[in-house]
Amino acid sequence: MKTNPGRFFEDYSVGQVIRHAVPRTLSGGERALYHALYPARGAVYSSDEFARVCGLPQSPLDDLIVFHTVFGKTVPDISLNAVANLGYAEGRFLAPVYPGDTLQSQSEVIGLKQNSNGKSGVVYVRTTGVNQRGEAVLEYVRWVMVRKRDMSAPAPETVLPDLAKVVAPADLVVPGGLTFDGYDFELAGEPYRLGDYAVGEVIEHVDGVTVEEAEHMLATRLWQNTAKVHFDATNRADGRRLIYGGHVISLARALSFNGLANAQMIVAINGGAHANPCFAGMTVRAWSEVLDKVETGVPGVGAIRLRLVATSGTGTALRDADGKYAPEVLLDLDYWALMPV
Amino acid sequence: MKTNPGRFFEDYSVGQVIRHAVPRTLSGGERALYHALYPARGAVYSSDEFARVCGLPQSPLDDLIVFHTVFGKTVPDISLNAVANLGYAEGRFLAPVYPGDTLQSQSEVIGLKQNSNGKSGVVYVRTTGVNQRGEAVLEYVRWVMVRKRDMSAPAPETVLPDLAKVVAPADLVVPGGLTFDGYDFELAGEPYRLGDYAVGEVIEHVDGVTVEEAEHMLATRLWQNTAKVHFDATNRADGRRLIYGGHVISLARALSFNGLANAQMIVAINGGAHANPCFAGMTVRAWSEVLDKVETGVPGVGAIRLRLVATSGTGTALRDADGKYAPEVLLDLDYWALMPV
Amino acid sequence: MKTNPGRFFEDYSVGQVIRHAVPRTLSGGERALYHALYPARGAVYSSDEFARVCGLPQSPLDDLIVFHTVFGKTVPDISLNAVANLGYAEGRFLAPVYPGDTLQSQSEVIGLKQNSNGKSGVVYVRTTGVNQRGEAVLEYVRWVMVRKRDMSAPAPETVLPDLAKVVAPADLVVPGGLTFDGYDFELAGEPYRLGDYAVGEVIEHVDGVTVEEAEHMLATRLWQNTAKVHFDATNRADGRRLIYGGHVISLARALSFNGLANAQMIVAINGGAHANPCFAGMTVRAWSEVLDKVETGVPGVGAIRLRLVATSGTGTALRDADGKYAPEVLLDLDYWALMPV
Repeated sequence: MKTNPGRFFEDYSVGQVIRHAVPRTLSGGERALYHALYPARGAVYSSDEFARVCGLPQSPLDDLIVFHTVFGKTVPDISLNAVANLGYAEGRFLAPVYPGDTLQSQSEVIGLKQNSNGKSGVVYVRTTGVNQRGEAVLEYVRWVMVRKRDMSAPAPETVLPDLAKVVAPADLVVPGGLTFDGYDFELAGEPYRLGDYAVGEVIEHVDGVTVEEAEHMLATRLWQNTAKVHFDATNRADGRRLIYGGHVISLARALSFNGLANAQMIVAINGGAHANPCFAGMTVRAWSEVLDKVETGVPGVGAIRLRLVATSGTGTALRDADGKYAPEVLLDLDYWALMPV
Repeated sequence: MKTNPGRFFEDYSVGQVIRHAVPRTLSGGERALYHALYPARGAVYSSDEFARVCGLPQSPLDDLIVFHTVFGKTVPDISLNAVANLGYAEGRFLAPVYPGDTLQSQSEVIGLKQNSNGKSGVVYVRTTGVNQRGEAVLEYVRWVMVRKRDMSAPAPETVLPDLAKVVAPADLVVPGGLTFDGYDFELAGEPYRLGDYAVGEVIEHVDGVTVEEAEHMLATRLWQNTAKVHFDATNRADGRRLIYGGHVISLARALSFNGLANAQMIVAINGGAHANPCFAGMTVRAWSEVLDKVETGVPGVGAIRLRLVATSGTGTALRDADGKYAPEVLLDLDYWALMPV
Repeated sequence: MKTNPGRFFEDYSVGQVIRHAVPRTLSGGERALYHALYPARGAVYSSDEFARVCGLPQSPLDDLIVFHTVFGKTVPDISLNAVANLGYAEGRFLAPVYPGDTLQSQSEVIGLKQNSNGKSGVVYVRTTGVNQRGEAVLEYVRWVMVRKRDMSAPAPETVLPDLAKVVAPADLVVPGGLTFDGYDFELAGEPYRLGDYAVGEVIEHVDGVTVEEAEHMLATRLWQNTAKVHFDATNRADGRRLIYGGHVISLARALSFNGLANAQMIVAINGGAHANPCFAGMTVRAWSEVLDKVETGVPGVGAIRLRLVATSGTGTALRDADGKYAPEVLLDLDYWALMPV
């Protein structure tokens, strides 16, 4: 059989390195589509002129374009037979990506644990996205639950990676040359700087977007993500297409402009959970909670740690009385973004 | 509250200048999306080679890309609390915009009139779009009805701007270097020149497009237009998303290629009314009436003044017996376009 | 009447050459949209770096972008009054097309045959796509059934072109400089080279895509294809929009990556039939049959001849017991693609 059946749990071993197909050159076309698919308005990612005032050679591609592109390549090798996408950790954006750059990605298996039912197991991978000069632009750890092909295959030795709960401020990479010295708050859309946010503050981002099938499929294909469940309505018993979790991340991040316009560039993803599935027809809203604020090594450039929650309901409920995610919560993401001090 | 509540009627004063966020660099990506969203086929905006024969350095971005980009930036400051978008006047395209250019916009309040009910008022703004060299590329006047935050706020002095019914031919700006001397009518798609059109002539544009939710949302987001009603199906009692009026303008203009293929570049918008709301599922058609024809200062380059009507029905009815717009009329736009004499 | 009524059968004569409007400059925007609309992943068309290793200056635009662009221009002149799109033959891709290139197309009428009912006839055209340097990039023969305007018009002399059943291997054009010597199978996505495929082998491509109205309309507009039936839901008695046959070709070709990842570039289209109409809501799948394998004049570069079938069902049934296409078969395409030997 020449088609790709995907890897099963027993096909992974700790230390294994997988180079993912297919390298991808990104252009202004991907940016235009990103901005048509999500209400993204961050000034650094919208304007060459604004980016230059911030010390960059031109406007980079949105941080999450890079994430989705690198992630998409891993799907045929990592998550084609995944039952669930369990979590993210230690995500760091290491260098901006510009139109014309070509990305490819590879993953190293860093942990394995068979489930007690013997039918599946958890695979931990550290994925790295690399540009055409061999420079790493993004790395992150993801773990997924993967089915076994052969239920009688022996369990591998359990290896659980030691993962940081939060990327340490000292490990955040500020893009070379970045400065907020000439930052124009009026053009950026809001007057608030790092000092205006308080830890514990909650921001409801007001706007909502009702999602269409065509939109999430355009987005998911653009990242060359091949998971059947996103495209094939005959794949689930209920005839619904599951929306790629990254689509919800991008929607929520874009909606968070309204209240966090100056949280310009994501530099780290500390963790994340796709709490409940998202389907077309839902109206997605978002709220954020300020978790931390720090200065970076670059004067004037601070970092704000945010919890970003996407919901198919209204309000800012996160968990039920018994501590489980409320049924309307779609995403709970923990990340660091750069902001003028 | 850090999110943008939008301005209310009492927040405006005559002479006030508002710089709008977020500047935007446009690329071939926006052009490709524009041509995927609308059946646009104007040769100057389709082909670098055709544009060069017409004396331009390359194919500019479609005139209405510029309009939507400049307009979109004004929404958070001008029309977030608008009850109605009442009209346009004195619109002029002042310079072509090319891939790589960055646009920003600003508006000056030029008129105010509180409504007799004391609950809202009309705000007149003159908006200017500017490129990265500080050159104005577009200006237009728009007036909107905006709610008051505080019903007891005193009415401002009424100031009504003196607006031209039509942009005078002498005020039309022909792009520098433009020539139709080598114009290839066959490649442009139709043989008709300015002399072939008669004032009063009506052209039914034949084609129709049934509109989908995903399409108008992609378009409206691309222009960074943030008005909730376009995206959030929970925002109206009837659960319908209102389609951005500019989407209807672009649809109708593109449909008008069939019969007006040589009306190459819009140079002025004399006026316009969004007569009735447009919703997904409607099949939009268009017809045009020739209102005037003039020569410009550039030999061989004429200007045709057109009424462009978009309709959700068929035929060319504009008004009911009592003089009101017929219920199927969506748009009544009055503009000047350049055409070979 | 200034709008285009399209040509009728009696408007064509053998030897007639029609230059089609409107020339089109393509950019990275068209590529990004193509990859959002179809799950295309071919490495040569995805990565500048991969293309350079294969001896090309950068990643060309997908072969079918070129086909659709050239084809779209012919619609207003050839198939506006077509009753049916009957077939393709002698299609050859003659030179790669890169972002920034401008394409136009022209057709020569090479055959005519009035139907026995006297109401319509078959028109054969050879269409050539040309770039801004006047170089032919694609040529193909298409024949369509076109209505007569005047049923009493006399029948033209019947001329039936002599068309090759298959483009001869010696006539396949390998792009200048192409080499697979440094080909990286891992990055390309699959290990299979020409020698790994057997004539007669059938590959089911596993994945399926449920089609949305917005998607096929975005695609069809992008190619400036103006056929009403694709856009106007009021155009057919059943209120359904017919999906452009080329949309199905691109979907099927992209799905065939899974099993044919190294069938990198289409160089010829030997024939094709749109067996049954495709409508939104269908889930499209694809399977391929290997029809032939040959070496080209370039060492290491082979060509594989494939039957590509798109289906709205499952499985690989092609014809009913009586030899007619099975009702779920949408497309039966016969083409040559280049593959490492």
